[in-house]
Amino acid sequence: MSSGFEFLSLTELRKKKSYKWRQFGGDTIPLTVAEMDFRISPAITDALQDMIDRSDMGYLGANPELQKSFAKFAGALWGWKFDSELVRVGNDVGSCVQEILNVISKPGEAILINSPVTNFAKWILEAGRSVHDIPLIESEMNYRIDFAGIESAFASGIRIYLLCNPHSPVGVNFNKDDLWTIAKLAKKYGVTVLSDEIHSALSFDASNFTPFLDSCAEAKEIGVCLSSASKAFNISGLKCAIYLAASSDLNKKLDQIPESARHRASLFGVVATAAAFESGVPWLKDAIKTLENNTQVLAKHLEEKLPFTKYRKPDFGYLAWLNFGDENWREIFAKVDVALLPGEIYRENIPNFARLNFATDPAIMKLAFDRLTKLAK
Amino acid sequence: MSSGFEFLSLTELRKKKSYKWRQFGGDTIPLTVAEMDFRISPAITDALQDMIDRSDMGYLGANPELQKSFAKFAGALWGWKFDSELVRVGNDVGSCVQEILNVISKPGEAILINSPVTNFAKWILEAGRSVHDIPLIESEMNYRIDFAGIESAFASGIRIYLLCNPHSPVGVNFNKDDLWTIAKLAKKYGVTVLSDEIHSALSFDASNFTPFLDSCAEAKEIGVCLSSASKAFNISGLKCAIYLAASSDLNKKLDQIPESARHRASLFGVVATAAAFESGVPWLKDAIKTLENNTQVLAKHLEEKLPFTKYRKPDFGYLAWLNFGDENWREIFAKVDVALLPGEIYRENIPNFARLNFATDPAIMKLAFDRLTKLAK
Repeated sequence: MSSGFEFLSLTELRKKKSYKWRQFGGDTIPLTVAEMDFRISPAITDALQDMIDRSDMGYLGANPELQKSFAKFAGALWGWKFDSELVRVGNDVGSCVQEILNVISKPGEAILINSPVTNFAKWILEAGRSVHDIPLIESEMNYRIDFAGIESAFASGIRIYLLCNPHSPVGVNFNKDDLWTIAKLAKKYGVTVLSDEIHSALSFDASNFTPFLDSCAEAKEIGVCLSSASKAFNISGLKCAIYLAASSDLNKKLDQIPESARHRASLFGVVATAAAFESGVPWLKDAIKTLENNTQVLAKHLEEKLPFTKYRKPDFGYLAWLNFGDENWREIFAKVDVALLPGEIYRENIPNFARLNFATDPAIMKLAFDRLTKLAK
Repeated sequence: MSSGFEFLSLTELRKKKSYKWRQFGGDTIPLTVAEMDFRISPAITDALQDMIDRSDMGYLGANPELQKSFAKFAGALWGWKFDSELVRVGNDVGSCVQEILNVISKPGEAILINSPVTNFAKWILEAGRSVHDIPLIESEMNYRIDFAGIESAFASGIRIYLLCNPHSPVGVNFNKDDLWTIAKLAKKYGVTVLSDEIHSALSFDASNFTPFLDSCAEAKEIGVCLSSASKAFNISGLKCAIYLAASSDLNKKLDQIPESARHRASLFGVVATAAAFESGVPWLKDAIKTLENNTQVLAKHLEEKLPFTKYRKPDFGYLAWLNFGDENWREIFAKVDVALLPGEIYRENIPNFARLNFATDPAIMKLAFDRLTKLAK
């Protein structure tokens, strides 16, 4: 039976009211912000259709369906078991991180991150905290954690670590040993680890992803998991994120998050997320198959058109982290009206890097890269 | 032509996933939280249907349609003219108030309110500010502003006034003179007035409502308007509020609100709100007609069943503010499984007051009050 997975055409994409296809308009092909150019899972559209048909748009209250569906999803994908009542809801992962920082840290306090990394620094600064960066160690586009650097940060007094698991934009799934090492160090120094797992459901091989809280006993004591269906199911505009801690101490702190913050997810976001986790897996499998295939399509285009590019196939998702070396990628792509995101959003002083979103019909990727051929002529 | 206004049946209401009909379940009739038991305006459902059909659920970006539609709506209803580009977007009015307090006030700073009033005290305390209350002056269920009290609060150093315009839950539309007096005093003492106008579109007579910013020249200099389609069009679960200031000083401060906060409205909320303001007026007129009729239905029920109740027909909306005097209304309504909201949510030490939501089919209101007859037998 069909999972309902389909590509949207360029004509359909250009009608979108969401950000990606509206940000430039005209003839630009945006390979930028994290939206997928796929039709939404029928599990989600059916659930939202039902909300519209029943005129169900009032206040968000308790939603045990969301809690149970995430527990079921996490159990099926990763064998991770937890009490579904631990699952809390918020607007998006960024705002949940900020709400959590408000109850577990003080204004000005330094928060550890590993650049290059998704919007963490922005969230931390907006929350009135400061950033302490221990960059990932790179070697030929492979990235690993600098454990010695992290231990020395912990020893210097850092008490909160905002971990990107799996790591975006570099596209790396950490292994269980990595997570265990982090948890052990964090436990030793009394550090709380906030693990942003928003991309986890998109791992090309689910057995290659370990939820931080499920990595070891220490992690359960000191970790908070943050996640959302927004990246994996392409519903970031619906506004719903989840987070949970297993330790009673951390749960007491999370209880202090203001009531209002818990009502800032949208009812449609919550219903869509529950539906995605409950019944969206067949669609997700087809999406992942398509994305993994697209990593090869992208590799071929890069090799043919921009052979100087350094690229490592990501372990998950739809964001490729590219190093264009000495070539002026901004000029090249601007000339052909194809947009990428500058790597400097994720770490300063890396002008040669960019992030490319390949969650699109291979025909649209071909269209973008064919423009480079025309440019060369 | 039909505006699409219709009642939802009890069977339909009990299927809702939103808060009002889920909070108690069973046989309880909830006349509580601010949801209307009406079918949503076709202007809104058509717009959301289109989003679903086109799989349009990605990130929220700029949305000039929302800005223009509110300017058009405000112009048509109240003759209020302003530059639509001034309109800003946020998650809900409460979170917008908190974001604004973060950029125009200091932690601990006292904020003026007039109780009994909607959730203002909660928002202020959650934002780490303190509450300075100058209660409304009541006389036989008529409420007016204590201008002398307000001037003395301003003179004592209060610099922010969170005004409820029109005032909920007491149901009073302030007149242009009231607003002009507030603006003049605020200007004199350097006070910023945040005017929560979320109920304004539901005024039974639009000519009886004055947007604070449109009340006089002084108001334009010191006021911020906050609004939403959530109350008037019953879409609070979709998460979208708007706010705007006319003064360039205030706009510079509002520019300091973190970028993330601006992306916490949902895309569906923004699209629904724009559709409501643009094309929802016929439905709104029918909703208002129904609500105003329901004020009479309610008066009749109260007179027949609970004649000791003091009730003043509100000037707008669907929330009746009731004084049950010495009678134990909690016990009476609990016995018949009808739920109201205690007035003490809006001001301490007023156990005899309650708020009753009459935005329902008169048949459902009758059902609720008929239970009281059975109780009496």
